[in-house]
Amino acid sequence: MSLRPELPIGVFDSGIGGLTVVRALLERLPNERILYFGDTARVPYGVKSPETVAQYAAQITDFLLERQVKLLIVACNTMAAVAAEAIRARSPVPVLDVIEVGARVAAAATRNREVGVIGTLTTVRSSAYEHAIHGHDAAIRIHGQACPLFVPLVEEGWLDHPVTRLTAEEYLAPLLARRIDTLVLGCTHYPLLAPLLQQVAGDSIRLVDSAATTAERVAALLERDRLLNPGDNLPQHRFFVTDVPQRFQAVGERFLGRLLPEIEVVKW
Amino acid sequence: MSLRPELPIGVFDSGIGGLTVVRALLERLPNERILYFGDTARVPYGVKSPETVAQYAAQITDFLLERQVKLLIVACNTMAAVAAEAIRARSPVPVLDVIEVGARVAAAATRNREVGVIGTLTTVRSSAYEHAIHGHDAAIRIHGQACPLFVPLVEEGWLDHPVTRLTAEEYLAPLLARRIDTLVLGCTHYPLLAPLLQQVAGDSIRLVDSAATTAERVAALLERDRLLNPGDNLPQHRFFVTDVPQRFQAVGERFLGRLLPEIEVVKW
Repeated sequence: MSLRPELPIGVFDSGIGGLTVVRALLERLPNERILYFGDTARVPYGVKSPETVAQYAAQITDFLLERQVKLLIVACNTMAAVAAEAIRARSPVPVLDVIEVGARVAAAATRNREVGVIGTLTTVRSSAYEHAIHGHDAAIRIHGQACPLFVPLVEEGWLDHPVTRLTAEEYLAPLLARRIDTLVLGCTHYPLLAPLLQQVAGDSIRLVDSAATTAERVAALLERDRLLNPGDNLPQHRFFVTDVPQRFQAVGERFLGRLLPEIEVVKW
Repeated sequence: MSLRPELPIGVFDSGIGGLTVVRALLERLPNERILYFGDTARVPYGVKSPETVAQYAAQITDFLLERQVKLLIVACNTMAAVAAEAIRARSPVPVLDVIEVGARVAAAATRNREVGVIGTLTTVRSSAYEHAIHGHDAAIRIHGQACPLFVPLVEEGWLDHPVTRLTAEEYLAPLLARRIDTLVLGCTHYPLLAPLLQQVAGDSIRLVDSAATTAERVAALLERDRLLNPGDNLPQHRFFVTDVPQRFQAVGERFLGRLLPEIEVVKW
């Protein structure tokens, strides 16, 4: 399979959280065409068994590969945590996932080698960040904390709300007690909570936001492989979902930071 | 299709919330055999589109009917809200759903005809409770309030937690301002929050809990149709799920109020 610069980038997530990654990509690489797949009928993946998540991930990978992409981005920490190897095994094109990117940045950022990772239950239990960060520096201590309420709080739009603050204080307390200096936002919903989390954690703690770091990494990869799209027309993106859930428009636009284009519904 | 007393009762839900209904059934009708189906791979239904919910509901209905049940209980407010007619149309056995039961009790309970209904977004937007309650008394005013955070709070186990209390105060405030005297818990997760909701709402407000009221209604129906199981052996229940999610055991037992029996996983 020969990769050409004008091919789109495939980005996928269990739902619409991956739109935070798309938003960062559109800002960093405005010439690139995006095919987005959000499995909104089966979201959330964060509490499902690893076997089920891996099965869904394979199905989505095949869907995007059939549509000819030059790069696949796993913009879902849960899929990256339990299915990254399976996705790479079926993909003839390069695969980038938010965990490898976040781990690289966290390993470079920490000074005291105490790193906190917050995410869904499945992501935190998988220890995927621990393995990825230890690939850079085995002396870093990783402190994981599942935050199952953050996704519904973001979808409710309570980004700066007393309930969210109280919840964040409770979730972050054990990590702050370990004196972490770096906190990985290990879920694509969490960048929307970054201002509040920074306040609760304190200014001295570096937040690692997978959306922005992934966009940087994509730019570097495409440049290295001479796959940057040279076109100067406005690229036509496509957004596939498996359901149009309640509040989709409002929540999606909050994530994407702009109006949502037309959505194509895939019935599985 | 001839119905026999020794056949089981089919109970289904989008996930494990329907176990609160099973718990009430086991207490009220200890001789009855239960086939439970929880669509844990595709939960939650509460934010999905009505079309998708109806399609899933039909699939589960067929699954239970193939296993020979004498009665179907739709123990999921979201499915009852958007798919009750479709389920009844395919079922040769009687169908009871939590909305018709809750509506009947609420209509009989209210004195000032101001009734609050809390539930998922899909349930509240469907106006299904409004239609069902108006079938009993068209003069009752219904005040709906979606409470998307209650399900994740229950699954987190924060049943009596400051975050849950603050969330409940915010969600219930508009209903209390309308001086409701009756509050329908329109989601099978909510009975676990009943003590806290009673405190926030105040003692003068009657909470209508679909689990207990459904069990009463099942007992009355089976007695009328001479379908009560006369057996005095301990009945063998069966529990089908589409995934064994994280925390399944702990959350399931919190809902069921006893140890979970063996679970059978159905891969769809």
